[in-house]
Amino acid sequence: MAGGSGTRFWPYSRKSRPKQMLNILSEKSMLQMTIDRLQKLHNVEDILIVTRADLADSIRKHVSGVPTENIIIEPEGKNTAPCISLAALHIAKRKKNSIMGVFPADHLIVGYKEFQKAINTASFLANKDNSLVTIGIQPTFPSTAYGYIQYKTKSEMDHMNAYSVKAFAEKPHLGLAKRFLKSEDFLWNGGIFIWSIDAFMKNINSHMPELNDQIIKISKRINKGVGFDDIWKTIKPESIDYGLMEKAKDIIVVKAKFEWSDLGSWNIIHDNSPKNKDGNTIRGDGLIIDGINNFVQSDRQFIALLGLDNVVVISTDDATLVVTKDRVEEVKKVVKYLQDDKKENLL
Amino acid sequence: MAGGSGTRFWPYSRKSRPKQMLNILSEKSMLQMTIDRLQKLHNVEDILIVTRADLADSIRKHVSGVPTENIIIEPEGKNTAPCISLAALHIAKRKKNSIMGVFPADHLIVGYKEFQKAINTASFLANKDNSLVTIGIQPTFPSTAYGYIQYKTKSEMDHMNAYSVKAFAEKPHLGLAKRFLKSEDFLWNGGIFIWSIDAFMKNINSHMPELNDQIIKISKRINKGVGFDDIWKTIKPESIDYGLMEKAKDIIVVKAKFEWSDLGSWNIIHDNSPKNKDGNTIRGDGLIIDGINNFVQSDRQFIALLGLDNVVVISTDDATLVVTKDRVEEVKKVVKYLQDDKKENLL
Repeated sequence: MAGGSGTRFWPYSRKSRPKQMLNILSEKSMLQMTIDRLQKLHNVEDILIVTRADLADSIRKHVSGVPTENIIIEPEGKNTAPCISLAALHIAKRKKNSIMGVFPADHLIVGYKEFQKAINTASFLANKDNSLVTIGIQPTFPSTAYGYIQYKTKSEMDHMNAYSVKAFAEKPHLGLAKRFLKSEDFLWNGGIFIWSIDAFMKNINSHMPELNDQIIKISKRINKGVGFDDIWKTIKPESIDYGLMEKAKDIIVVKAKFEWSDLGSWNIIHDNSPKNKDGNTIRGDGLIIDGINNFVQSDRQFIALLGLDNVVVISTDDATLVVTKDRVEEVKKVVKYLQDDKKENLL
Repeated sequence: MAGGSGTRFWPYSRKSRPKQMLNILSEKSMLQMTIDRLQKLHNVEDILIVTRADLADSIRKHVSGVPTENIIIEPEGKNTAPCISLAALHIAKRKKNSIMGVFPADHLIVGYKEFQKAINTASFLANKDNSLVTIGIQPTFPSTAYGYIQYKTKSEMDHMNAYSVKAFAEKPHLGLAKRFLKSEDFLWNGGIFIWSIDAFMKNINSHMPELNDQIIKISKRINKGVGFDDIWKTIKPESIDYGLMEKAKDIIVVKAKFEWSDLGSWNIIHDNSPKNKDGNTIRGDGLIIDGINNFVQSDRQFIALLGLDNVVVISTDDATLVVTKDRVEEVKKVVKYLQDDKKENLL
């Protein structure tokens, strides 16, 4: 899934250069790192990338190895459930009863061995029981930015670190997140899913019948080689978590121990960056005088910070953002203003 | 006097473009506004500009009207006393016993009529009594950024708003500044002086004999058409206030009511700028969300501020400064760092 708009990283991310295409943590982009990771598990010919029409061309030039026909275009973003359904259609056309894995293209994963083990176990279980399988990440702190998965600790599959899912929980408040962490039967929902096309489509049919009908219509159009933008337009945006996972039964979660982050804001980038003794990070050229816990990133300009703590400064060629660390989530408000003000060159 | 280095306005001001050459408050530079103001009082041929060697060429191109030979070069900045002495030398060479006026090239003055009245009175008194005359500005708030002049309220010249000076006071603390304002016998020291060359040189001889000797040597060199950098190098930097005004006797102050500011920091520029209802000023393109009393100036970039109060952001092509309003005076520390780090292109 590589269709995100990446407004959280404005001004570094833009409509034409969302987070998955940024080399935000290393010299490689998040998307390329995701492809590299999956390529070690599977043939690159079996990797499909779903993205927005306006991004398809630059993604084609951006990624190496993935065949052009594997870039699937969503006419517009409709959240994850329609996106995954469209991918399922394309996979089904290639080979009936395939096992499908769903991976966000803009997440940080450190620890390839643990990742491989978890995905292999999940594939095995998805194939064996025709279950919906998800990957749960062992939490390391009481995050309020992530969804959680509660599981039944008694399991016949615990030699595989696999458990039945009890419930999906949305982003909790801090108190609740602390209880989740303490109770030891909660995992982070990393947005990675493994299932057979068959099991997935059955579940879509049961829990999202409207989407199911629309996907069947789209399937027919694709078979005839006809566009489906008009049908896609009528699809209600919905996340796979809310639309399917929270409703489906008999979901299996595989507990994984790799280091994971959705890299949802500049704060998380700062957390994952080297810092000096004052907790400051400067990427690019700059100077911080009398300030602690600041994150500065600059493409080109020299940035001088004087007397400020807990501030994020992001400087690009045509725009600079200055935001307190407790407000980084609200960068979207700036993007909204630029949209309303039709400042297309800054979006 | 147009030799200032303008580090307080970094990154907008640079070594090659100090404050006096910036159009910081209107479309005209501070220097050009000063010349315009004086040109209404006197022939432009009688206006001398004293500046640093490295600035002379750009000042020559920058100002209109002032003859090239009227640009006097200080080999290096030595504060105001040597600067004014050098100017006095040049004026004496042109015409003995002239009345000389000293004007900083980077101050804000609003109210031309009041300015004219004060300068004419001062010139009259400087001529009549051979006194040192200074202009005192009626204070409008208890400034801690300005020096003060205390005067004897009983005066035979009070029909001219002219008084004998009792004392010069350095920048006071706030409590003292409030008392100064309340006592009504204190004026701001605006750094404007009017005197005959004769009276000035006599006073330099009495109170700064070392400088007097050096100036006499320099005078001989100039008459021979020989350079004097070696003598200038040995001159001790000293302000005219500390070196002469605080020591001299029988100084007259003319009380003036024009609006005046030394524009000593971005805060003062903010004070003198239009603001929105939240006290924010944006010069250039930008957006402030949930913030009050901020000053943003940008040459080129779009600047977004989110969740910050009392912050100054100055964006130029190659550098951006972010500083809290209570630390703007410390911008010099950034310049010092750039000097030490030999980042010449940013100075």
